Amino acid sequence: MTDAPQVTPVILCGGAGARLWPVSRRDFAKQHAPILGGASPFQRTLRRFAAAPMFAAPIAIVGAEGRFMAAEQAAQTGVAVEIVVEPEGRDTLAAITAAAALIARRDPAATLLIAPSDHLIPDEAAFAAVVAAAARAAANGDLALIGVVAAAPSTGFGYIRPGASAGPVGRRVAAFEEKPGAARAAALIAEGCLWNAGLVCMRAGEGLAEIRRQAPEAVAAVEAALDAATDDLGALRLGDAFLAAPRISFDHAVLEKTDRAVVVAGDFAWSDIGDWREVWAQSEKDAQGVAAEGPVVALDAHDCYLRADRRLVCALGVEGLAVIDTPDALLVAPLARAQEVRGLVAAMTAQGRPEAAQSARTHRPWGWYETIDRGERFRVKRLQVAPGKQLSLQRHHHRAEHWVVVRGTAEVTRDGAISLLHENESVYLSSGCVHRLANPGRIALEIIEVQTGAYLEEDDIVRLADDFGRA
Amino acid sequence: MTDAPQVTPVILCGGAGARLWPVSRRDFAKQHAPILGGASPFQRTLRRFAAAPMFAAPIAIVGAEGRFMAAEQAAQTGVAVEIVVEPEGRDTLAAITAAAALIARRDPAATLLIAPSDHLIPDEAAFAAVVAAAARAAANGDLALIGVVAAAPSTGFGYIRPGASAGPVGRRVAAFEEKPGAARAAALIAEGCLWNAGLVCMRAGEGLAEIRRQAPEAVAAVEAALDAATDDLGALRLGDAFLAAPRISFDHAVLEKTDRAVVVAGDFAWSDIGDWREVWAQSEKDAQGVAAEGPVVALDAHDCYLRADRRLVCALGVEGLAVIDTPDALLVAPLARAQEVRGLVAAMTAQGRPEAAQSARTHRPWGWYETIDRGERFRVKRLQVAPGKQLSLQRHHHRAEHWVVVRGTAEVTRDGAISLLHENESVYLSSGCVHRLANPGRIALEIIEVQTGAYLEEDDIVRLADDFGRA
Repeated sequence: MTDAPQVTPVILCGGAGARLWPVSRRDFAKQHAPILGGASPFQRTLRRFAAAPMFAAPIAIVGAEGRFMAAEQAAQTGVAVEIVVEPEGRDTLAAITAAAALIARRDPAATLLIAPSDHLIPDEAAFAAVVAAAARAAANGDLALIGVVAAAPSTGFGYIRPGASAGPVGRRVAAFEEKPGAARAAALIAEGCLWNAGLVCMRAGEGLAEIRRQAPEAVAAVEAALDAATDDLGALRLGDAFLAAPRISFDHAVLEKTDRAVVVAGDFAWSDIGDWREVWAQSEKDAQGVAAEGPVVALDAHDCYLRADRRLVCALGVEGLAVIDTPDALLVAPLARAQEVRGLVAAMTAQGRPEAAQSARTHRPWGWYETIDRGERFRVKRLQVAPGKQLSLQRHHHRAEHWVVVRGTAEVTRDGAISLLHENESVYLSSGCVHRLANPGRIALEIIEVQTGAYLEEDDIVRLADDFGRA
Repeated sequence: MTDAPQVTPVILCGGAGARLWPVSRRDFAKQHAPILGGASPFQRTLRRFAAAPMFAAPIAIVGAEGRFMAAEQAAQTGVAVEIVVEPEGRDTLAAITAAAALIARRDPAATLLIAPSDHLIPDEAAFAAVVAAAARAAANGDLALIGVVAAAPSTGFGYIRPGASAGPVGRRVAAFEEKPGAARAAALIAEGCLWNAGLVCMRAGEGLAEIRRQAPEAVAAVEAALDAATDDLGALRLGDAFLAAPRISFDHAVLEKTDRAVVVAGDFAWSDIGDWREVWAQSEKDAQGVAAEGPVVALDAHDCYLRADRRLVCALGVEGLAVIDTPDALLVAPLARAQEVRGLVAAMTAQGRPEAAQSARTHRPWGWYETIDRGERFRVKRLQVAPGKQLSLQRHHHRAEHWVVVRGTAEVTRDGAISLLHENESVYLSSGCVHRLANPGRIALEIIEVQTGAYLEEDDIVRLADDFGRA
């Protein structure tokens, strides 16, 4: 038995997690949302890799809209991560192909591990041990999946049926089983099938060669995109040739067709925290089965997940319910129907409700803002600017702004003049004036912005210069 | 048959309506809350009396904390109302005695109608006709109750058992029946019993005489309080002798003991809108039995009352549920357990939760304010000042304030200097400065106030002069 090689994690950061609405939204994907306590699933994933020396620095494949969020959350954890930006999401085949091709150009013999960014695996040591086994199984050029030993006959996952022995480690994949019904799921488990957790180990060069055999057009598109890749504010931005890659999953395009797939069983606690029922299952509960986050009062409530972002949530005499309260939207649904939240979000999207996709707090490369009040001709926002960051140099045609610094220090540019504003100081920006807000300090800057005018939407902005390429 | 005399309505504005939490709270009682659409129950009550010429200008008996709200809401309806302020609430015996004594001093032969401020009676003409009948029944000095023909075997109300004929109108009260169980309620209705709706007609002098027979100490306390009553900013404030009146209901102290009680049956739609189940019952519903107020998305929901003050409320797959969302607190409970909300509020009060009693929006004699955001050393409020009103001349030791006018015109006093601020103008008030905010205009004034400092509670205020007697 050889030592396991070092493994480069490839973290897939696509997907939005519509079933975890309203905490997760299109503009604030599940992997970045604080679903279970403080750290996001993406941050937990980073820490899981940082915890074991067998892992090299991870590569995160992210969409254009999530790139600053991924960088910011990685910075918070202190884990160095290489960020590869897709010009547009193309499902997992294109993302995995890009990672394999990128790593193969550096070292075809390198081993990589494809890993979703939004799963929960509390036992880091057990996880690392299974990855080490999978890496050994992939040493001969096979694509080595990690199949999780099923903890329950779940109908929400696909299953992997192990076949003949694949040598010292693992077994050949006999078949992939689609998401089953409940009875079928129990039967699959009895027959030794494993959950497909989306974890795949491969050697970069041989993995890429196998992808080329199954999906040559994806490799061609990705190679061209890598040839045209540019450094974009510290990330690697793939060229637009990437858009020629077919929009299909890696499972459908490669794993289900190849004869090089093997599976290594992993017997660790695992969850895709895919819906509120699963979040409830993974949460700490009281004797009545109630899991509460935030200010919650529960009276004679049973088996509920009660989540209060800010406001007080009171549940009286309810059972089996999810109550998810966020600053701008509330969800009430039975935990047993948590899977249907996706359909609810689709219905709201069809109705044109902005809450379907947009969070109350809007994240920007420099920090975030949130509308805290609005009236007929005014809007009030709270803005937070990260240390060292600045907004674009900008102008509004239709609105004036009052800024009051409530935390930290602001550097304000107004029609060419620069001044420092401290806590409890304010400045007025008339409509048409050219202005910029920067945080020159070491702590986060927070300001209250009162906008007045006849038109107060986000698109009344002329960017004259920007650190984030938006001018 | 004689013509009905003119009737002076006496509107009882005590009580808070804990079962309608979180819309109704101790500081924003049910009768003033927009429970069913725009107008409050108190305003609907005023309009009901204004609609029939048989009614004289009403008298409202209010607590000290509700007096400005009552005056403001009356002004909005355009109905002239005389406001009598209790120094402290003493239940209905004291309030009704005060009204009877006050009216008797002016005209002992006058007829009055005791009326709760928080009930729903949509058919104003039918109501007026029954009051006219009750007034005739009271012409001989009897206390004439209006008993509502029961629409369902409710367990939430007391019942009145009619006895022998009382002459041309009404019957003598044979007995009062306490709130019954469901089977007993059905039996009571079959036996001809009527709901006790708290509506009592009497002639002032003779009614007062009967109260004196049953509860002489109440009349003594109230007469002394009337002797010492003062004009208080346009209301009649009873003297502190009022506090000597026993704390007991008019029903217990007088109606259940007297032999002068008669009952006139009223066959009109009536509701005490006492809990969310009753609000749901009185609301317009869709084909699935869902009543929705505000921005609501309901998917496969049945028989629910869904109320969204501001935020989007989404209900998926729930049945028989009340979801009541307010800016600072949310309630989720089965409609069938709506009566238990009172116990929930008591539990929260015991836990010291401010949301149990205090609304997000705090009403003041000059208008209202609401905290829209807060952080470690800052708080942001939105204030509305009614036309012609002003706040106290005041000073804060620990906080500075930034005011931005977002609607209307402000007259700002700052350390003796007075200036006018228009929309989109701002002013800074350092801690310790003596300041005042007034609305000299014809439309409501709204400002955004950003407070900064180490201590930001309401009690950091020194009032130097005040239009409302608070200095």
